[in-house]
Amino acid sequence: MKEIYLDHAATTPIVSEVMDVIIDCLENDFGNPSSMHGLGIRAEKRIKEAAKLVASLLGALPEEIFFTSGGTEANNLAILGTAYDKKRRGKHCITSSIEHPSVLQAFSHLESQGYEITYLPVDEDGIISLDDLKSALREDTILVSIMHVNNEIGSIQGIQEIGSLLKKEKSKPVFHVDAIQSFGKLTIRPEQWGIDLLSISGHKIHAPKGIGALYIKKGVRLQPILFGGSQQGGIRSGTENISGIVGLGEAAKWIAERQTSEPEHLSHLKGSLAKGIQHAFPRAHINGSLDKTAPHILNVAFPSLRGEILLHGLEEEGVYISTGSACSSRNKKLSHVLTGIGLNDQMVEGSIRISLSHLTTREDIDEFIPILIRTVERLERYIRR
Amino acid sequence: MKEIYLDHAATTPIVSEVMDVIIDCLENDFGNPSSMHGLGIRAEKRIKEAAKLVASLLGALPEEIFFTSGGTEANNLAILGTAYDKKRRGKHCITSSIEHPSVLQAFSHLESQGYEITYLPVDEDGIISLDDLKSALREDTILVSIMHVNNEIGSIQGIQEIGSLLKKEKSKPVFHVDAIQSFGKLTIRPEQWGIDLLSISGHKIHAPKGIGALYIKKGVRLQPILFGGSQQGGIRSGTENISGIVGLGEAAKWIAERQTSEPEHLSHLKGSLAKGIQHAFPRAHINGSLDKTAPHILNVAFPSLRGEILLHGLEEEGVYISTGSACSSRNKKLSHVLTGIGLNDQMVEGSIRISLSHLTTREDIDEFIPILIRTVERLERYIRR
Repeated sequence: MKEIYLDHAATTPIVSEVMDVIIDCLENDFGNPSSMHGLGIRAEKRIKEAAKLVASLLGALPEEIFFTSGGTEANNLAILGTAYDKKRRGKHCITSSIEHPSVLQAFSHLESQGYEITYLPVDEDGIISLDDLKSALREDTILVSIMHVNNEIGSIQGIQEIGSLLKKEKSKPVFHVDAIQSFGKLTIRPEQWGIDLLSISGHKIHAPKGIGALYIKKGVRLQPILFGGSQQGGIRSGTENISGIVGLGEAAKWIAERQTSEPEHLSHLKGSLAKGIQHAFPRAHINGSLDKTAPHILNVAFPSLRGEILLHGLEEEGVYISTGSACSSRNKKLSHVLTGIGLNDQMVEGSIRISLSHLTTREDIDEFIPILIRTVERLERYIRR
Repeated sequence: MKEIYLDHAATTPIVSEVMDVIIDCLENDFGNPSSMHGLGIRAEKRIKEAAKLVASLLGALPEEIFFTSGGTEANNLAILGTAYDKKRRGKHCITSSIEHPSVLQAFSHLESQGYEITYLPVDEDGIISLDDLKSALREDTILVSIMHVNNEIGSIQGIQEIGSLLKKEKSKPVFHVDAIQSFGKLTIRPEQWGIDLLSISGHKIHAPKGIGALYIKKGVRLQPILFGGSQQGGIRSGTENISGIVGLGEAAKWIAERQTSEPEHLSHLKGSLAKGIQHAFPRAHINGSLDKTAPHILNVAFPSLRGEILLHGLEEEGVYISTGSACSSRNKKLSHVLTGIGLNDQMVEGSIRISLSHLTTREDIDEFIPILIRTVERLERYIRR
């Protein structure tokens, strides 16, 4: 049976170009980048080359890229590191109610230490209101953290507008953007957009798990959250995960090439997918507006079914999708994102996330739609009995 | 020119068995371990298998192994996580003056938050005194963190004795051991030895950089330091670095096989090395006693030379060694370990670290000794002129 993987927002396969540099690095450049001899210097050089590739996709400087163990650490470093650094100026932060757990839990940890957090609500499309943000800003607001693309429904926040709003603010809060789902899918220009900190993750863009990065705008200060040998300018101690770093750099390069050669690939595929589903299931509800969501995430509610059952039904046909985000799919709580956009329990429980990447082909989508139709009909028959 | 790598305490090459499982994992098991579908479950299974292999080398349970991004994060999680968890019981911790920066800097961070840290001195062999430890213990001592094998001079602490001493202590401090240099080189039995937390690192035992683990004895509590999707029972959030984890597991297996088939390999090689150096250079001083240091680390002071010059001189001959630890070799401060054992500045500056692994052959050592002799003589002539 041919397998169709449509769970790219959870994680992505590694592409062969990335695989090649990882193997080369593991086999030939095992030196410790902190070592004084040639092997160390070679390893350090590879890190700098990778930083250049990652920076290039952001229009940033290589020295603004700090490698972490993944998106979670990048988000934690941004949020905790800023909060600890600015605590004398204020203890108020603003975020949204639909952030990833690695943002929400970091803020919840800050709350336990006396920080005050404002959680902005979202509308039915999963978008925060600029007016809400404006009213939430205070003199003691030190940090605003808003995700670019939501990992469950794909809603895109107006990062540029938020950035220019914050620039005018007297209190000059630090602006952090969790770009883990958007990096490699949408254009991001931190400098022009007024972003101070931006998190990315390797395994969402065909690099391995266990590697991520935080863009830190030149001149922006934060406290480290891991202490030790003062690698990466003391911002992130610990011997660098060179093979992961090199893989992330190569993945950024791979993505950049795809974006140039087929910029509309993902949105075309998603368009066909949405059309196919809407045509076959008039009662299915697309969560979030099609024109306000990222080109690789489609979240759909089938009110007659439970998402989990549909997930396993599709798996029997060789198709992999997800119910919510992978990070919370194993616990049974209702998705805070889907309840956040106002869905009732039945709709939340009937929702699945279909997510694409540059590896997804037109054939995948063309084959998936009839499988989905067949599976939903089979499961509905079974449930009605 | 044949290269001889004798800097294994800084980092190690990846062995082909480990390489094979990493490639297999990256190619075939890219699923997100938190995903509900089969690909996720397969990835999760590989993590459990790796935990079993790591645990087995420690005589521990797989569920006592928590994977981190490396030794630095493991040490930070152990120290900060314990201090935050026990802060109501006390704010006093004990460590030694020759710990790795990832331990010392974590404690320094705790000091900035009102914790009180006692730094035990070491004798000329780099060993703490049990009496000093006994006198340092207080009712509010919550944590004792002592490294097993020092990374610069290889001195071995009496971990078992410390463990039994602490067991009798009323205040029941948590006992953390940084075993990053000893894991895979010496036998470690956390449970029998009274160890609560134990840090290990992958890249010191032929697994990749960016992976490590913390052994947490069943029932021992600590606070997480990274917050998010509650992976690994909430102790360490973040999508698991599966290929690194699988590599660490395989490396543990590889090491276990070597320890059975050639248990004396390292100590025999180190014995020959020390004898060769002592014979050729009667004025060279071996830092730390030969019988109280680990079988893979030899630290030698050449009073007539500067370690850095010797390092580069040897590199010209294809030999890689180190002056201090890789983690501090790029900054120019004198080693806190070598000054800690009472060496004067000239001796500290003349010290080099030669470090072995199971990959080191008798041929390597036999070829290295004449190269060392030739290089020292060449450099001494040059300096005398």
